[in-house]
Amino acid sequence: MDLLKERILAEGVAESESILKVDSFLNHQVDPELMEKVGEEFAKAFQDKGITKVVTIESSGIAPALMTARFLNVPMVILKKEPSKVLNKDLFQTVVTSYTKGISYELTLAGKYINENDHVLIIDDFLADGESTTGAIRLLRKAHATVGGIGVVIEKAFQPGRIKLEEQGFSVYALAKIESLKDGKITFAE
Amino acid sequence: MDLLKERILAEGVAESESILKVDSFLNHQVDPELMEKVGEEFAKAFQDKGITKVVTIESSGIAPALMTARFLNVPMVILKKEPSKVLNKDLFQTVVTSYTKGISYELTLAGKYINENDHVLIIDDFLADGESTTGAIRLLRKAHATVGGIGVVIEKAFQPGRIKLEEQGFSVYALAKIESLKDGKITFAE
Repeated sequence: MDLLKERILAEGVAESESILKVDSFLNHQVDPELMEKVGEEFAKAFQDKGITKVVTIESSGIAPALMTARFLNVPMVILKKEPSKVLNKDLFQTVVTSYTKGISYELTLAGKYINENDHVLIIDDFLADGESTTGAIRLLRKAHATVGGIGVVIEKAFQPGRIKLEEQGFSVYALAKIESLKDGKITFAE
Repeated sequence: MDLLKERILAEGVAESESILKVDSFLNHQVDPELMEKVGEEFAKAFQDKGITKVVTIESSGIAPALMTARFLNVPMVILKKEPSKVLNKDLFQTVVTSYTKGISYELTLAGKYINENDHVLIIDDFLADGESTTGAIRLLRKAHATVGGIGVVIEKAFQPGRIKLEEQGFSVYALAKIESLKDGKITFAE
């Protein structure tokens, strides 16, 4: 997606070899018009997949996921990062460890919003080590839903997220693939 | 906003005299079409106020705020709930205590996304005790921005949020005002 790549080049900051900050249009300040175009692009890519729900992870994925869900005309479900709760049959939880951020959290889904009839599109802002996406897939499996696709705004192609997800049989659609952040320079794949 | 009130009556759950759960269309599952209408309504209400940015608080305000910002054609800025950081002149933080939820958190704003030229519309999902909105206003003051309005999707009119904000000279626009949640029954104001 050329418009996105231009914004990443113009405004993204390679803070280290593994950290790309895009706080000016995606993670802190958000450009609603760009998010609309991102949503339109994801919706176009997955329009024939029979998607019934768009699922994202709190909170940076919400903006692109909402726009995608609007274009696909399906609900969005936000997986919440919450402290452990007393589990009951209607609440699914799984621990996610983010190696890049060095933190763990509980990802939570109320069972009544996803069920065995759902074919889900997972949308997130970044794909890095794939741990949060894998956690989302664990929750969706507990709810007996199937995954129809995974869309990420920015993929850090030098981290193992895509390989992990493809090994499990999932296809990943990234709007921008970063090959390298070495020496403060942002290089795209392909 | 009649469409919203109908959804609240049909799907909202008065869990106690102070807690209204609207997890089916606003806080966990999100209805993108309803959010678009909510955004349109807020944009209409504040279109002549010279708003330069829409600001919201992570994370349930993001969906309505994004749609509002899209209609107003301005950026959205998400105030982040984050652990304390080493402060520098470009990062503003303030502690917010939520009495209803019984928790405290640090609300964070990177100064480069809001400055003295900004006239901000604050959008949030709920107005209850007004503590999070007051925290947002403190941060915006630190950034020398002015507040052009406050829009909330659902106001719990039996809690002191509106009074606190109006006492500080701010006007609050609520799309649905809840008068009472007594005996599991949702009653609107007016």
